[in-house]
Amino acid sequence: MEYQNIFSDSASKMKASKIRELMKYASMPGVISFGGGSPDPLNFPFAEVKDIINKWDDKKAGAAMQYGGTEGYPPLIEKIAERMKDKKNIDLTGQKIQITTGGQQGVFLLSKILLNPDDIVLVEEPSFIGAMASFLSHQARLVGVPLKNDGVDCEALEQTVIDLAKSNKKPKFFYTIPNFQNPGGSTLSMEKRKKIYEISKKYDLIVLEDDPYGDLYFNGEEKDYLPIKSLGADAPIVYMGSFSKILCPGFRLGWLLGDGALIDKAALAKQSVDACSTSFGQFVAYDYLASGAIDGYLSKMRSVYRAKKDFMIEAIRKYFPKEARYTEPNGGFFIYVDLPEGVSGEALFKKTMEKKIAFVTGEAFHIDPVEGDKHIRLSFSNSSKEEIEKGIAVIAEEMNNALNN
Amino acid sequence: MEYQNIFSDSASKMKASKIRELMKYASMPGVISFGGGSPDPLNFPFAEVKDIINKWDDKKAGAAMQYGGTEGYPPLIEKIAERMKDKKNIDLTGQKIQITTGGQQGVFLLSKILLNPDDIVLVEEPSFIGAMASFLSHQARLVGVPLKNDGVDCEALEQTVIDLAKSNKKPKFFYTIPNFQNPGGSTLSMEKRKKIYEISKKYDLIVLEDDPYGDLYFNGEEKDYLPIKSLGADAPIVYMGSFSKILCPGFRLGWLLGDGALIDKAALAKQSVDACSTSFGQFVAYDYLASGAIDGYLSKMRSVYRAKKDFMIEAIRKYFPKEARYTEPNGGFFIYVDLPEGVSGEALFKKTMEKKIAFVTGEAFHIDPVEGDKHIRLSFSNSSKEEIEKGIAVIAEEMNNALNN
Repeated sequence: MEYQNIFSDSASKMKASKIRELMKYASMPGVISFGGGSPDPLNFPFAEVKDIINKWDDKKAGAAMQYGGTEGYPPLIEKIAERMKDKKNIDLTGQKIQITTGGQQGVFLLSKILLNPDDIVLVEEPSFIGAMASFLSHQARLVGVPLKNDGVDCEALEQTVIDLAKSNKKPKFFYTIPNFQNPGGSTLSMEKRKKIYEISKKYDLIVLEDDPYGDLYFNGEEKDYLPIKSLGADAPIVYMGSFSKILCPGFRLGWLLGDGALIDKAALAKQSVDACSTSFGQFVAYDYLASGAIDGYLSKMRSVYRAKKDFMIEAIRKYFPKEARYTEPNGGFFIYVDLPEGVSGEALFKKTMEKKIAFVTGEAFHIDPVEGDKHIRLSFSNSSKEEIEKGIAVIAEEMNNALNN
Repeated sequence: MEYQNIFSDSASKMKASKIRELMKYASMPGVISFGGGSPDPLNFPFAEVKDIINKWDDKKAGAAMQYGGTEGYPPLIEKIAERMKDKKNIDLTGQKIQITTGGQQGVFLLSKILLNPDDIVLVEEPSFIGAMASFLSHQARLVGVPLKNDGVDCEALEQTVIDLAKSNKKPKFFYTIPNFQNPGGSTLSMEKRKKIYEISKKYDLIVLEDDPYGDLYFNGEEKDYLPIKSLGADAPIVYMGSFSKILCPGFRLGWLLGDGALIDKAALAKQSVDACSTSFGQFVAYDYLASGAIDGYLSKMRSVYRAKKDFMIEAIRKYFPKEARYTEPNGGFFIYVDLPEGVSGEALFKKTMEKKIAFVTGEAFHIDPVEGDKHIRLSFSNSSKEEIEKGIAVIAEEMNNALNN
């Protein structure tokens, strides 16, 4: 049977994630990868997780191994709500929380309940490929808004909304990663957070605020990175959290926090997507939050990632040609590089892969592939100092070779 | 903000699962529920799972807690392939396996890559609500084919395909649960399996063969329940498996087995749905298969569920009015009841819920709600003998009350 002719329109719009494809290379023996956005596996709290599981009695284990409600495990939802209120200063009036199968599913569910074919979605450019792939798989049209060092260009954002309104169009939502953006590495300034809040309120523009890295800051404190959603309850903002970076990705757990009507619909969509997220993982996550272990863990991981970032920045300073520019992130996993003029990301990747050094080319993150080819994303989260030193030196060497040819 | 007006067309077609809603009642203290299709939590292999996890060294734990490839954990895929070949007699030439987040996600991914709005899907009537909800959320049109005691009516199936062809229509696929059907409790005869295989081949009709219960037979042996897909490699059949009934639902793990081109597209869709399924659960599932523990466990669970089924059938014989008819399943979790004439499933449910006895009304499983109201589904998998005795007596009493009014 020839399947090519029978796939759905949605399937024909699907874009393979370069990152996922790249993970295949990255996992080959001997490859140093700055590619995936993976946490440091040497520092997962396995001892704590094992302890948690070993303490379960048969009754608790029975519930942890069973189906759960679609919304999620109620005590976990309550713990997250507490945390969102206490740590992120979010007003929960009229809001609900939905547990999702990883942060990715949060993006997917919102896409599914909001997007019709040809609907417009505003994204930062560059933006996270997994989210853009989800919007595209719902046949949306992506419109990019430039990302600056202090976050998205708010004037361009508002102007885009105004321009679209002139032709009777309204974007379904604006997708943003305020903290330590993926891939850009930039942090949205507090002033711009206020501005986005005002735009959302003024134009009834739904904002999907994706914040998987928010707890992994290197400078300042919690209050310097408070969500846009913390600024008030009068704008349609959905906050998206993830356990992937504060516990581990291996359980696939995240959450949505938004208006009750929206979350109810997301729950309804989830019924047919995967019925419920892992009870086992949710029980672990609950015990992990309830024990307070998370705060010590986050404090430790901020140091671990800060050291890796410092080391990569140092190596970049040491080796990269001066024409290359790069972000110095305040947190998260990523450094975004503007390649020297005339150096192609794609060509550079091919060269460094011959020496078993991997990263992600910017094309993955841009709507405009020509612009994309001028950048690469380097992740420092999952590499040792030795790997960083060696890998950055190789990338620099190949940049110089390209410049000299 | 008024969300009602901005939801997608897909969202407006979503049907709430009565079963999921019902789980809220079922989990209230004191309620005896024959509602959910949940395995017996008293018999989950928790000791084995705990043992498996405790044996992991830090390196293995690091990988189990990390992101994985979208296709799934390669050693697990290999183990499943072995099992599909050895136990289910499936020819794997040209076929691939995709790990899914529960069996439900398998249905969802195939829906996403195959269905455009208004496409036709053939379903057994009655059929599994979770699958139908997924088809409806992709705006498909459901066409029912009657289910008999020995499985779907194959003549009606072929006639439906022929009739549709007359108006230049072709169903995208036929969804079937051959073993211990949910909710019908019936088993597709071997003769009919051959017939469906021939229809699939003759008309190039894709068949989604959903087989979550196939290992939980009460009579005969493995070879009596071999999948339609085992009959040959010349028909476009996708086999769907699940760990929910052979290990536990709490990790959310299942798999698709089908033509490579189809599975590649499903993997692409999965990238934007949840990136990958739980590595943690996949590592447990692999060790569980590799240790051979699964076969002893399945043998035990066949006895456990057979005893529950026998006991419920006995109670039904003892208490139900003679006008009620019911299936006597060869496996699985469900007994389907044709209510005595004049008894409404919905009304019966309201009455028994006053006495804290829950089940699922047939309306959930039928395209035609009038037909649906003539049936109820009873699950025996998750109840003790005492609960079965008490619950069936109450349902019988209310049936008799309805008959006498």
